[in-house]
Amino acid sequence: MALYNQQELYIYNSQATKKEKFLPVNEGLVGMYVCGPTVYNKVHLGNCRTFISFDLVFRYLKHLDYKVRYVRNITDAGHLENDAEEGEDRIAKKARLEELEPMEVVQKYTVDFHDILREFNNIPPSIEPTATGHIVEQIEIIKTIVDKGLAYEANGSVYFDVMEYHKNNHYGILSGRKIEDLIANTRELAGQSEKKNPQDFALWKKAEPQHIMRWPSPWGVGFPGWHLECTAMSTKYLGEEFDIHGGGMDLKFPHHECEIAQGKAATGKDPVHYWMHANMLTLNGKKMAKSTGNNILPEEIFTGNSKHLSKAYAPTVARFFMLQAHYRSILDFSDEALQAAEKGFDRLMEAMQQIDKLPTSNTSSLDVSNWKQKCYDAMNDDFNSPILIAHLFDAVKMINAIKVEKEYISKEDLQILKESMHSFVFDVLGLKSKEAAVQKDGNSTQVDSLVKMLINLRAEARANKDFATSDKIRDQLFEMGVELKDNKDGTVFTVKA
Amino acid sequence: MALYNQQELYIYNSQATKKEKFLPVNEGLVGMYVCGPTVYNKVHLGNCRTFISFDLVFRYLKHLDYKVRYVRNITDAGHLENDAEEGEDRIAKKARLEELEPMEVVQKYTVDFHDILREFNNIPPSIEPTATGHIVEQIEIIKTIVDKGLAYEANGSVYFDVMEYHKNNHYGILSGRKIEDLIANTRELAGQSEKKNPQDFALWKKAEPQHIMRWPSPWGVGFPGWHLECTAMSTKYLGEEFDIHGGGMDLKFPHHECEIAQGKAATGKDPVHYWMHANMLTLNGKKMAKSTGNNILPEEIFTGNSKHLSKAYAPTVARFFMLQAHYRSILDFSDEALQAAEKGFDRLMEAMQQIDKLPTSNTSSLDVSNWKQKCYDAMNDDFNSPILIAHLFDAVKMINAIKVEKEYISKEDLQILKESMHSFVFDVLGLKSKEAAVQKDGNSTQVDSLVKMLINLRAEARANKDFATSDKIRDQLFEMGVELKDNKDGTVFTVKA
Repeated sequence: MALYNQQELYIYNSQATKKEKFLPVNEGLVGMYVCGPTVYNKVHLGNCRTFISFDLVFRYLKHLDYKVRYVRNITDAGHLENDAEEGEDRIAKKARLEELEPMEVVQKYTVDFHDILREFNNIPPSIEPTATGHIVEQIEIIKTIVDKGLAYEANGSVYFDVMEYHKNNHYGILSGRKIEDLIANTRELAGQSEKKNPQDFALWKKAEPQHIMRWPSPWGVGFPGWHLECTAMSTKYLGEEFDIHGGGMDLKFPHHECEIAQGKAATGKDPVHYWMHANMLTLNGKKMAKSTGNNILPEEIFTGNSKHLSKAYAPTVARFFMLQAHYRSILDFSDEALQAAEKGFDRLMEAMQQIDKLPTSNTSSLDVSNWKQKCYDAMNDDFNSPILIAHLFDAVKMINAIKVEKEYISKEDLQILKESMHSFVFDVLGLKSKEAAVQKDGNSTQVDSLVKMLINLRAEARANKDFATSDKIRDQLFEMGVELKDNKDGTVFTVKA
Repeated sequence: MALYNQQELYIYNSQATKKEKFLPVNEGLVGMYVCGPTVYNKVHLGNCRTFISFDLVFRYLKHLDYKVRYVRNITDAGHLENDAEEGEDRIAKKARLEELEPMEVVQKYTVDFHDILREFNNIPPSIEPTATGHIVEQIEIIKTIVDKGLAYEANGSVYFDVMEYHKNNHYGILSGRKIEDLIANTRELAGQSEKKNPQDFALWKKAEPQHIMRWPSPWGVGFPGWHLECTAMSTKYLGEEFDIHGGGMDLKFPHHECEIAQGKAATGKDPVHYWMHANMLTLNGKKMAKSTGNNILPEEIFTGNSKHLSKAYAPTVARFFMLQAHYRSILDFSDEALQAAEKGFDRLMEAMQQIDKLPTSNTSSLDVSNWKQKCYDAMNDDFNSPILIAHLFDAVKMINAIKVEKEYISKEDLQILKESMHSFVFDVLGLKSKEAAVQKDGNSTQVDSLVKMLINLRAEARANKDFATSDKIRDQLFEMGVELKDNKDGTVFTVKA
């Protein structure tokens, strides 16, 4: 029997603003769409948190035996500066600044994005479609919406008619915004825009002469509006109605609200059954921003090369740190918090190594099955990874108690404990032992541990005045590209790539 | 002064069937297009050789200070079985067999392709466009060719009119095939096809009801012909005339011949100035083929998990092996040849480590500048990497002779030697020391070397009856996941991931 039949999963639906029992459109199958990055810059750590959150969702759904089709797009055109309806395309602007073709910018930052998510041990999505790869599909959707009288052409651009749509539908259903407030709060003055109403948003924008990313369309040469790509790609790969749509909190309005309106206008159906929004990441208690220097890049965590950090942290430790918070909570990133997370991580991994060596008895003094269900209960409660991790630390205590024979466990229960720990730690949370988590340049923490062992042996040899051995260790390491330096606190080393 | 002004590069142009001096369309800039994989299967080792060959070209052009825009496409639709005009789309067929959406197949094998090329230390291309990402552009080109009377619509498909084109152009200019022979050798019978002539090839194919990859077009719902995507993407990103077009030898006809015809028909210009074709890879003297079992996958080389191999080889060793042959020669892959290559590779890397420690004199007994120009001459002669490697081994001899003071070198010459060796070994050939070349599961050969050092120290400790130390080494390694086993030949070890 499939595991999803034994476990009742509840998901917090941002549209319903409550937890709801998860029932997929088709039994055993899950369609999930997550808004991916606009590839015009190095990926932001906050975005990494969002993608790690949905990686957890993807992993748990697969663990529950669902067949999941996870679609995460790459925005490689149409996303204008400041998310506004006017201004320069983000990618085209970067291309101008870096003297590259826009698609060279796209390639550069797509490769960077994939590299960073691989470090975090994210599983690639099932499909990773691009905005420019779906121009035809976007044009087809616009035609449909225009035909239904819910969009209009103006001077080579096409706008979604929000007021017309709102007559028979609910614009604001996701974000809870009231259309009257939207109208009242707008700064655009009537008559200054080609839009009928300031709330209207672009489905297709006429390309100004300087706009280099452009395609022919029934309305002239232009490019699609940013909101439209997600509607085109989610509909194409997941259908007109699908299960889960995720993204960062900041995308709820206007992006996701517009996606709902576009989908409903085109197909008559509410496209998404469960909306999920991941919360933001702060740094030392403040919003991250390049301009203030209160900012940290993922690669700076892996190398320790940041004024905000005292040392480097393995990607898997940073991942563990993020999963210690629930995806809907704000998470504050700091060196102290990472240090604490690393201690916990090491304790967890130590226990994972101990499991194989535990003694068994005829019976158990511990209720392993109950513990296991608690782990599932945590994940079934809207993917509550911090509670799951708390239960995993209960298991660490159990393991250590069995080791020193304060508790005892049967062979069968040990098997359950072992399998569950492996499932939750490696498959569901996606953690890796640091040994397996190879860092950049091929230096792993395994190398570090081995070098440290050799440094200790050398210190002992020197203490015993066995200088032949101590020199040999130093010289052999040097030949391998590992340089030792003795200072007053002991011996440090550097490894050449 | 840019290096390309000091070095005269000659490229064997497959169309001219001779080496020609390389003169780019725009001074200092190079546009290069290489046909990428059809992502419906794990990447073939022969394809890897092709992409490593063009990675060498990319690296050398960049080393010569050219600003290179390297475009390599991903074929994610339109490539039919057996390269024929009829039959099922390769990706759609695989999707049916694997019960996946076609774009899931695309994603799966694109990720695999990138993973493998990363192992081989290939630099990602500047742009990696997809066929499905350029449907609009392909339709526009078809419209133009139809308007010029060089293509015709038949029953919802559009075919290129080879005979009409050949009246004022030369179909066969690249492959040297004569149109009369093509007509004589065709097996298609007149009247059985909707084509005017059997030589005609599809620009757009009507989608049969079961064909799942389909787009609307002026000729009805269908999909683009395979040859067209490369014309659309090379023109879009490199212009109507560009410098270098590369691909495997097997693509020369019909694929590249058709690209020339399409480009010339659409723009009136011969699109490509230098055609480059990489030769094939055989295994143990025979053509590789899955059906006969005479086949090896890249990952099998890295793990040693193949009946054709006695051990695993680092990706950088396999790369070195391939670069020991010229890209236009057939290369035979075998375990013996790889073993020999590995010995050479190790010798080269040992010398690279020695360079830094060489003694210097006031003058040199060696002509380093002459040696350096010979290295360039080899690469300038159609990227002749085997000759370059022969020169690098001359340098290895020089380094070893200087080390034992049979030869001497000035500080200035040593600097030239060092810089040139680094440039050619790491930047141009793209090799990595095995230490930097991390293998799967995070186990590097650096880990292996460190463990071996510890095994030797343990053996010494045991010989000295210092069992406290020898046991400590074994136990500490065990805790780190490194298990030692003593047997009659010594101590072997296994590393847990």
